[in-house]
Amino acid sequence: MNMAAASTGPQGDWNPALYLKFEGERARAARDLLSQVPLAAPSFGYDLGCGPGNSTDLLQKHFPSIELIGLDTSEAMLAHARTRVPDAHFLHESVDDFHPDHAPDLIFANSVLQFTPDHEELFPRLMSFLPQGGCLAVQMPDSAREAAHALMRMIAVDGPWRDRLMPVVKSRAVISDAQDYYDWLSPHCARLELWRTTYVYRLDGAQGVVDWFAGSALRPFLNPLTDKERETFLAAYRREIIKEYVPRADGMILLPYPRLFIVAVR
Amino acid sequence: MNMAAASTGPQGDWNPALYLKFEGERARAARDLLSQVPLAAPSFGYDLGCGPGNSTDLLQKHFPSIELIGLDTSEAMLAHARTRVPDAHFLHESVDDFHPDHAPDLIFANSVLQFTPDHEELFPRLMSFLPQGGCLAVQMPDSAREAAHALMRMIAVDGPWRDRLMPVVKSRAVISDAQDYYDWLSPHCARLELWRTTYVYRLDGAQGVVDWFAGSALRPFLNPLTDKERETFLAAYRREIIKEYVPRADGMILLPYPRLFIVAVR
Repeated sequence: MNMAAASTGPQGDWNPALYLKFEGERARAARDLLSQVPLAAPSFGYDLGCGPGNSTDLLQKHFPSIELIGLDTSEAMLAHARTRVPDAHFLHESVDDFHPDHAPDLIFANSVLQFTPDHEELFPRLMSFLPQGGCLAVQMPDSAREAAHALMRMIAVDGPWRDRLMPVVKSRAVISDAQDYYDWLSPHCARLELWRTTYVYRLDGAQGVVDWFAGSALRPFLNPLTDKERETFLAAYRREIIKEYVPRADGMILLPYPRLFIVAVR
Repeated sequence: MNMAAASTGPQGDWNPALYLKFEGERARAARDLLSQVPLAAPSFGYDLGCGPGNSTDLLQKHFPSIELIGLDTSEAMLAHARTRVPDAHFLHESVDDFHPDHAPDLIFANSVLQFTPDHEELFPRLMSFLPQGGCLAVQMPDSAREAAHALMRMIAVDGPWRDRLMPVVKSRAVISDAQDYYDWLSPHCARLELWRTTYVYRLDGAQGVVDWFAGSALRPFLNPLTDKERETFLAAYRREIIKEYVPRADGMILLPYPRLFIVAVR
């Protein structure tokens, strides 16, 4: 199976099956985020970037009486989510356009705000939608400085696709330091928790690492390429990964994967 | 109040009051560790390095039917623990000498194994005490590479106490990389989770940082000094801290504090 083709359809939409392959690993981060939300029984919440509904499902089970609205920009993901969490509502809407009519008790944003720039403006704006005591809970992968990402950029500038991929290589990281979020949020907060967890994912050799990123960080690099180029790009990536992440005695590769967490109560 | 004198008595024993000052912050790490222990109702467990009993208390409440034994090498801490968790047993014993007569379902070691060297030998030995399905759960502060620690070493080599403190400065970090623990433990494990969380502690200015470390990492530096020298050392430390950790607009200092977590099931 060609993972590149699997990860991105002709429109570059997300592939729910590939995304869900690593649901166990990804679920841990959503659970860790939820574990620090200091609300007993919120009545109304948003799940921003709900994807195939795994985080929505988690929220619905944890807060049985909550009314939930999930937002995503992928129709394929929303179709999955509607089946998975029939009690929730789902809307095709981006975080940029998010402006709730009624104040939610909870805005849950698990692994989505890394796609939206201008956090200095975005985070206070999200806080402004909350009533006093309302909670903004955010988790963002913060792996741009890891070797696995440096290798993507290296291969991108070192191949026939160089010109097409240069905008991706040069795109600036959206995520700031923890202390920036503190400065932007603390004037609007009664309580603020910040932490960064580096999970150590146990993946099945170099192909496991390729599969992991094919559903996420590799997408912008692969989208502009032809099928043949994608194969060549991924083969080069696999070769470099195995040099950088030496397999352990059992053949598994340990992938350190940092994520930044923010839980802010207005 | 002289924090150095408060942190270490004449015998260099731990001061429970100072340790408990930051109980809220420290409790989060113990709770995060416990949240990943995949046991439903263990019947017998050890709490290694139980300190004043906060982790023992957490375990006893989470597993109401468990029989717990807490181990520590500080009598002052054990006296606190016995009052706090009357249902548990407590023994004055070091991790080095730990060798249970009956196999425990759980060995919980929250913030203690960083004081015991030779992890390559220690961790498999602890696993060998467990029956199949038993769990070893470990959390260790892993902050030796942080600026706050580099500053302690800098002041130690740059004062009249240099010769006395050189052994402390040169002492090697006990904690290894996550992948080393994977290599040492995975042959003995049915399941193994590794992660590293950098908590961002919000402390009350430079003095808050001094107080934080006076109860922990500063102790070996302060123990060999006279009262007068301790004051001088701490004043120098405070001056350096404020240069390195710039207070935010509200006067608080954000201290990143990394901790390594290991949950291994035999």
